[in-house]
Amino acid sequence: MNLTDLSRQMAFIHEIDKLKYIQRKTRLFNSMRHENDAEHSWHLAMMALVLSEHANEKVDILKVVKMLLIHDIVEIDSGDVFLYDQNANHDNRVEEQEAAKRIFGLLPDQQAEEFISLWEEFEAGISAESKFAKSIDRLEPVLQNVSNEGGTWSEFDVKYDTVFQKTVKIKEGSQVLWDHTTNLFEESITRGILKKN
Amino acid sequence: MNLTDLSRQMAFIHEIDKLKYIQRKTRLFNSMRHENDAEHSWHLAMMALVLSEHANEKVDILKVVKMLLIHDIVEIDSGDVFLYDQNANHDNRVEEQEAAKRIFGLLPDQQAEEFISLWEEFEAGISAESKFAKSIDRLEPVLQNVSNEGGTWSEFDVKYDTVFQKTVKIKEGSQVLWDHTTNLFEESITRGILKKN
Repeated sequence: MNLTDLSRQMAFIHEIDKLKYIQRKTRLFNSMRHENDAEHSWHLAMMALVLSEHANEKVDILKVVKMLLIHDIVEIDSGDVFLYDQNANHDNRVEEQEAAKRIFGLLPDQQAEEFISLWEEFEAGISAESKFAKSIDRLEPVLQNVSNEGGTWSEFDVKYDTVFQKTVKIKEGSQVLWDHTTNLFEESITRGILKKN
Repeated sequence: MNLTDLSRQMAFIHEIDKLKYIQRKTRLFNSMRHENDAEHSWHLAMMALVLSEHANEKVDILKVVKMLLIHDIVEIDSGDVFLYDQNANHDNRVEEQEAAKRIFGLLPDQQAEEFISLWEEFEAGISAESKFAKSIDRLEPVLQNVSNEGGTWSEFDVKYDTVFQKTVKIKEGSQVLWDHTTNLFEESITRGILKKN
């Protein structure tokens, strides 16, 4: 055993506890409480396990789960950016890359490289695994909003066109989940919790 | 695609959101806020990914991560039992088995069977994967208490002998992590945040 490696691993485990403080705009399925990034990451990993058969391409599920568990860790430094915020800068790549370097860099070098590379693969959204992981990440808030009387759609007056545009990438990872999503949109419009104009 | 299967998967995804409401006695690493079961499960999965090289036996890491992601889901029905509570019934197996049947039973049959069997394997603690998963589950609250001025040890006046007895199983999954744990105990006794008598 390399003692230095273990202490670096422990420093990382300690640091990522802070993900539990990063609050998202979305709220829980049955509550007005905001979801935090750690809960969110757990839920996405569970969704990936349960829904993997619906991926368009065959995926390495361990890789998908790893991606989802770590995908928001950079937000410890760079903060959560709300998907529907028109004013926020969604292109905070430099800040996020610095965060990835700092936080994953707490780990022994080989692990740090593996996690940074996984996170970059997720961000790029090109591999089958990252496309499916991103579908899951986009799907969860839809389910939450449908379950929660419109959730962030109602709260921030986000219209159907914007929602569609921000979620259509679901179909790159899973046509089945995208079909399900469009059904949920129609249902939500009928229920009046998602507005067309 | 089997529509019924997808709707059963969605029902499960919706139901397990409730894990975010199950509060543990332990508190976060740097805060007085209690940890909930969903955050806890995310952190354990991350710990398993980072620490897997220290397992006594070679483990299937996907299986370990799956176990840790689902291990507390039964608590949605049966509630959290505090490890150091002398009065609580730690043998609520019947209640937990009913919970597993109900909650995992929301899934399509084959997935339900897989998850119930994984959860039972974790509970039994016999396989290499379940021993390592249980080590991680026992280690996290030690790290939290050390980071948090004694945490639940101080709050509930839990003495070293009891802590030792409840954590010694860490060594069945990982001798390296157990050695680290005993170092942390010594350090904590010196610092006065863990009492010998």
